[in-house]
Amino acid sequence: MPNQGENIPGYSYGAAELAPSHISLDDLERLKISAGFTEQDSNALRLAGEVLADQTEAIVHQWRSGIIASIPHLARHSRTPEGDPIPDYLAKSNLRFQQWIVDTCTKPYDQDWLNYQQEIALRHTAVKKNQTDEVRSTPYVPLSDIVAFVAVMNETIKPYLASKGHVVEEVEKMHVAWCKSMQLQMALWVRPYIEASSTSSEG
Amino acid sequence: MPNQGENIPGYSYGAAELAPSHISLDDLERLKISAGFTEQDSNALRLAGEVLADQTEAIVHQWRSGIIASIPHLARHSRTPEGDPIPDYLAKSNLRFQQWIVDTCTKPYDQDWLNYQQEIALRHTAVKKNQTDEVRSTPYVPLSDIVAFVAVMNETIKPYLASKGHVVEEVEKMHVAWCKSMQLQMALWVRPYIEASSTSSEG
Repeated sequence: MPNQGENIPGYSYGAAELAPSHISLDDLERLKISAGFTEQDSNALRLAGEVLADQTEAIVHQWRSGIIASIPHLARHSRTPEGDPIPDYLAKSNLRFQQWIVDTCTKPYDQDWLNYQQEIALRHTAVKKNQTDEVRSTPYVPLSDIVAFVAVMNETIKPYLASKGHVVEEVEKMHVAWCKSMQLQMALWVRPYIEASSTSSEG
Repeated sequence: MPNQGENIPGYSYGAAELAPSHISLDDLERLKISAGFTEQDSNALRLAGEVLADQTEAIVHQWRSGIIASIPHLARHSRTPEGDPIPDYLAKSNLRFQQWIVDTCTKPYDQDWLNYQQEIALRHTAVKKNQTDEVRSTPYVPLSDIVAFVAVMNETIKPYLASKGHVVEEVEKMHVAWCKSMQLQMALWVRPYIEASSTSSEG
């Protein structure tokens, strides 16, 4: 059973106090069509969710400690403006990062999912970054770096999808579905970033 | 020899009158690191350029006539606001679309490439859409739909990369490099869109 997130600090998926997404379910349906995201992809993601369930800690460790930590312009977003580590912040956001892998694969892409997409997007913009964990860090993560880093996540997730012995065609279907979900999620993040940029300079 | 674009209406790659990109070569280096884009990917893209050179018309035909034409919220961007076709506009932008595939694979990612990235991004925003071909069409293409449609391009390009008999590992390398370049290019489009959005409502 994947972690359902009840014990993750700051994880507020489905919470009543979350602001409703500015993107409607109809908008989402259109975006799914734009991305070619079909029922087959939903099914492939469910299988990916089973495959990845006990690997999320290892995946996030690879992304955060194996890759981001050695890229100063990315690593700084988990540190103070002076560059000092904030271990508690990193630990909490790593737990949410792990849960996001599970949610990407297992949650229905419905109103709650849209609302939390907006929430996590805003937590990367100047509107809400640092607030959840009450830390002093960079004011925002440029969307351009997130969009770019998706390429790394897409490339590095594949061995984890292949690690449970599924045939190549099944691994490929899971990977295609994962990559489509990434584009869908980045598409959903554009509007919160554009709206946030009206009050600050980011991108 | 791939088409070098001299005879494509509105194709102004490398033209002196192009505005310099607001993104610097140093910014681009950082984005390449964020995307994990390496020299190996440049090499794989060069091979992809050879593989795709005589297939760009077929690829763009599949994307535009096979996919976009049957998706009203995407097809409208090549039509009048009333929904009437503009065959000349579609034909010219298809030629530029084909050339963009070649450029993605063969051009050095240098200042000229950055400048033209900004130019083609702006041609999808309210700042410049419709100007190049002097047409009356939708005022802009939402960046969210472009980001989403990248998933379709990434999925559908793969058989073309595999069509010239390269071994699976080589096809995979070409495909990974292509997908990384897409994220890099979308990352470069974020800023022109955010800047354009300060004068209009888009996303």
